[in-house]
Amino acid sequence: MSLALQAALKEKTAAVETMLARLIPEIPEAEGRVFEAMRYSTLAGGKRLRPFLVLATADMFNVSETAALRTASAVEMVHCYSLVHDDLPAMDDDSMRRGKPACHRQFDEATAILAGDALLTRAFEVLAAPSTHADPAVRCTLVSELAKAAGPHGMVGGQMVDLLAERKGRDHLGLDVSAITRMHQMKTGRIIGFSCMAGAILGKAPPQIRHALQAYAHDLGLAFQIVDDLLDVEGDPARMGKTQGKDAAAGKATFVTLLGLERAKEQARALGEQAISHLKVFDEEASLLRDVVGYVLERQS
Amino acid sequence: MSLALQAALKEKTAAVETMLARLIPEIPEAEGRVFEAMRYSTLAGGKRLRPFLVLATADMFNVSETAALRTASAVEMVHCYSLVHDDLPAMDDDSMRRGKPACHRQFDEATAILAGDALLTRAFEVLAAPSTHADPAVRCTLVSELAKAAGPHGMVGGQMVDLLAERKGRDHLGLDVSAITRMHQMKTGRIIGFSCMAGAILGKAPPQIRHALQAYAHDLGLAFQIVDDLLDVEGDPARMGKTQGKDAAAGKATFVTLLGLERAKEQARALGEQAISHLKVFDEEASLLRDVVGYVLERQS
Repeated sequence: MSLALQAALKEKTAAVETMLARLIPEIPEAEGRVFEAMRYSTLAGGKRLRPFLVLATADMFNVSETAALRTASAVEMVHCYSLVHDDLPAMDDDSMRRGKPACHRQFDEATAILAGDALLTRAFEVLAAPSTHADPAVRCTLVSELAKAAGPHGMVGGQMVDLLAERKGRDHLGLDVSAITRMHQMKTGRIIGFSCMAGAILGKAPPQIRHALQAYAHDLGLAFQIVDDLLDVEGDPARMGKTQGKDAAAGKATFVTLLGLERAKEQARALGEQAISHLKVFDEEASLLRDVVGYVLERQS
Repeated sequence: MSLALQAALKEKTAAVETMLARLIPEIPEAEGRVFEAMRYSTLAGGKRLRPFLVLATADMFNVSETAALRTASAVEMVHCYSLVHDDLPAMDDDSMRRGKPACHRQFDEATAILAGDALLTRAFEVLAAPSTHADPAVRCTLVSELAKAAGPHGMVGGQMVDLLAERKGRDHLGLDVSAITRMHQMKTGRIIGFSCMAGAILGKAPPQIRHALQAYAHDLGLAFQIVDDLLDVEGDPARMGKTQGKDAAAGKATFVTLLGLERAKEQARALGEQAISHLKVFDEEASLLRDVVGYVLERQS
């Protein structure tokens, strides 16, 4: 990882965690339990890739720090809500997350369902609030784009397809490379796409700039997913902090089972190069985004 | 029920169901299952009280039909999402809803969790879209107010308090009339409040008008809840379409256990009168809202 990226990751992660802690306060009332579970699930670490992408692109368009941090926090809330719900027994049934008990283990299933619901709701509340941006049209675009990325045509739809594929085991709905690419594009790609576009929306950048960032995000997101599949097979369990080898055990189609280890690695590298090529419209200001590609390809957890 | 209200309920219920069916299409892709579950949970009938309140107040402020119907549909999506999640085994564990299997029984738990998530997300997407209102500031206010009403300080927080009360059985967190009033105000009152205010937001009515409607909604919502508790004890099971007597069996505090049947009925009547008194700033245009009070007090299911 480049030193510039390392420093930026550290600084921006700290800033977004401070904002998250402020946006999700501890409260003394009985419903405080749901705030506690929200904080447990958002302040427990994680790569913070999505908020980092928001903040890194916001820097390219002279967006105010508050606007960028609130938007980054909203994206991270949506990401964490999806992890809390995906970990539930009725879904992926994962007991560990980021090296700690999953939310429904630390609290209970009902609290985890409610904490997820609350994080999703709070994300939209944060984006719609005047303190996120002076222009309500910008706030509406953020709400609308995040909802599209997270909803049944995006993240939720992708998780549905993934669950159906898992249930059918080795038949996996007949998922081939193209179907699995589409599934991941919905499940994780759309939110990564939003994260890369949000800074441009906040900075009112022209459409072709948004399109370049979207294309970058598309390839980065897919590379990220292929590396995820590789880590599920080759990763160091001590560094993963979540249950490993589940996909293989479930007989689930992944980029590794479909392409094999070597071709999957090649594919991730090729996507990384392609992602960087979409940034050619930018100069030095996109150097962090270029460095992120290497980070995503080389990550060990 | 007045003939005017009967006609208006029938007409507006049909209109909102048409809009809901359009906003949640059937799609052929694998993720179509989540759309199917969303449709199952929103198009299966119900009192449609919340969308009716949106439409009835929107009529008072000359709001366009599309704006009113989209907002009414968004509120109903949020209401239905909360029912789907509340019915889950880890939550209230209800197997029947509106006389049909609950979503997680008709489909499965994972699909029900995802359908609820998708309904909540879609509601915000619908509100933020330009076709809901030409003025983005109005759309942002809708998103923001609905998120507050549905989030951890509102509906989700109320459900958390309710669950904690239920778990503690007869100790019910020491819930007295004041605590149970607060819980219901969060759990159902805030969304009913939003439903009554949305028309005024869409019509850019002045703050004192919003406050009058909010006061009306506060009393109406509480009366509605007391009647719910009464029906749980005295209602005709054939007309309820959901599991009955659960609260009493769980030793849960309700307005009926705390006040007794007679005082609970008196309290509902008094709240109804108070609700109507808040409408004195309006003339004939609020006659449907006045009629709704009688409907809520006399309902049999």
